[in-house]
Amino acid sequence: MRAEGEEITDRDIALFEAGIKLGALYHQFIGTPVSMATVADLETAIERSVALQPWVSFVDVKIDRARVQRCENEFKYCELRGEMLDVTVVIRYKAVEVQARVKYEEEIDYPLMRIEKIFRNDR
Amino acid sequence: MRAEGEEITDRDIALFEAGIKLGALYHQFIGTPVSMATVADLETAIERSVALQPWVSFVDVKIDRARVQRCENEFKYCELRGEMLDVTVVIRYKAVEVQARVKYEEEIDYPLMRIEKIFRNDR
Amino acid sequence: MRAEGEEITDRDIALFEAGIKLGALYHQFIGTPVSMATVADLETAIERSVALQPWVSFVDVKIDRARVQRCENEFKYCELRGEMLDVTVVIRYKAVEVQARVKYEEEIDYPLMRIEKIFRNDR
Amino acid sequence: MRAEGEEITDRDIALFEAGIKLGALYHQFIGTPVSMATVADLETAIERSVALQPWVSFVDVKIDRARVQRCENEFKYCELRGEMLDVTVVIRYKAVEVQARVKYEEEIDYPLMRIEKIFRNDR
Repeated sequence: MRAEGEEITDRDIALFEAGIKLGALYHQFIGTPVSMATVADLETAIERSVALQPWVSFVDVKIDRARVQRCENEFKYCELRGEMLDVTVVIRYKAVEVQARVKYEEEIDYPLMRIEKIFRNDR
Repeated sequence: MRAEGEEITDRDIALFEAGIKLGALYHQFIGTPVSMATVADLETAIERSVALQPWVSFVDVKIDRARVQRCENEFKYCELRGEMLDVTVVIRYKAVEVQARVKYEEEIDYPLMRIEKIFRNDR
Repeated sequence: MRAEGEEITDRDIALFEAGIKLGALYHQFIGTPVSMATVADLETAIERSVALQPWVSFVDVKIDRARVQRCENEFKYCELRGEMLDVTVVIRYKAVEVQARVKYEEEIDYPLMRIEKIFRNDR
Repeated sequence: MRAEGEEITDRDIALFEAGIKLGALYHQFIGTPVSMATVADLETAIERSVALQPWVSFVDVKIDRARVQRCENEFKYCELRGEMLDVTVVIRYKAVEVQARVKYEEEIDYPLMRIEKIFRNDR
């Protein structure tokens, strides 16, 4: 690499922060025991823990109840897996808003993380 | 090791299961973002996730609020650490009850997991 | 519960410690990216981290290569899942040795943790 | 938010992916037992697991040996903590390279994740 790079913008930081939040929550909560009886509480706990972090202006966590029900074992619970998660976060850094999401994609069998929208809010 | 060992009793299983629950919750939840505003919710979420698991008849999770407050960073949250946790679980396997606990011990700077009581409930 | 319980023996402690190790490693490492190229290294890293803990006298970690290969995504890696793990640990606490194991059981679709052998080594 | 946002560029994606990698590794590996004897192996295991992920062209993991040594408990190991980590990753997405880093900052007592350099490599 050359010694100098390009200038780092607010937009760059907003995108970087959005990635951090999705990567972090995914690896923090995968494996947590969950059941139909506790799924709503777990959604809230994840939402609240993500919302604490810098620049998060919105977070919505949906855990797929059909998958939870299907995978409940003989003890009536299962572990949270990537394919159950659908999480949207909005990062606001200065005038830039980034909406990002992790959601399981059946075709590629992968919990894809992606940028959904980038906004500039100069108000 | 010799080919044969001793017979495995209900008491052995109850103790083994108590250990599993403490080891699991500790490594699942350490690192979760937490603040004074979310600490009660996180306690409940951990309790509910532990209570789902086999043979758990009681669980009580206390997160040390003084330590949470002290470690809140400039963004007003911190990560759950072993030294904030005080968790008691009771396992009931058939006629045996085991009460176990993980609690930070200042003198040895270690989140010690220990068996507190073993009961036999033949009723 | 009554105020007094039964006396806690070395055997009780050995079983409790065996449970802790399995619960801990499971929830620590599930979710780690792994591929056919890194699976041997990950086995070693898990073994070494478990071996550090108190009273562990032996640990063997096997990750199911067929499952790793099958679940490799378009990016040629997957996440470590419970059904890939087969881990045996031996705890020695004073004169008691406990061999315990976590291994996925196809019939119940569950990574079952169980006590395999308990020995008394009075030498 | 308005219905339409700005166009998503390769640079946006590179930054988002850099954030994902740092957030993920942090929450995956924090809590892992480590000692002076295993620290080099753990560095390698983390590096190799990060390197598997999409668009990672370089990763360097340094765990602070002085901190590991200082926090070794009576059992001669400790848990990996954020303040021990210094990780640099380079993401290459098409013609954009992003170098990002997580490193503990003493003054703010926080494992800060930051963008270090952004390059455009049109060759």
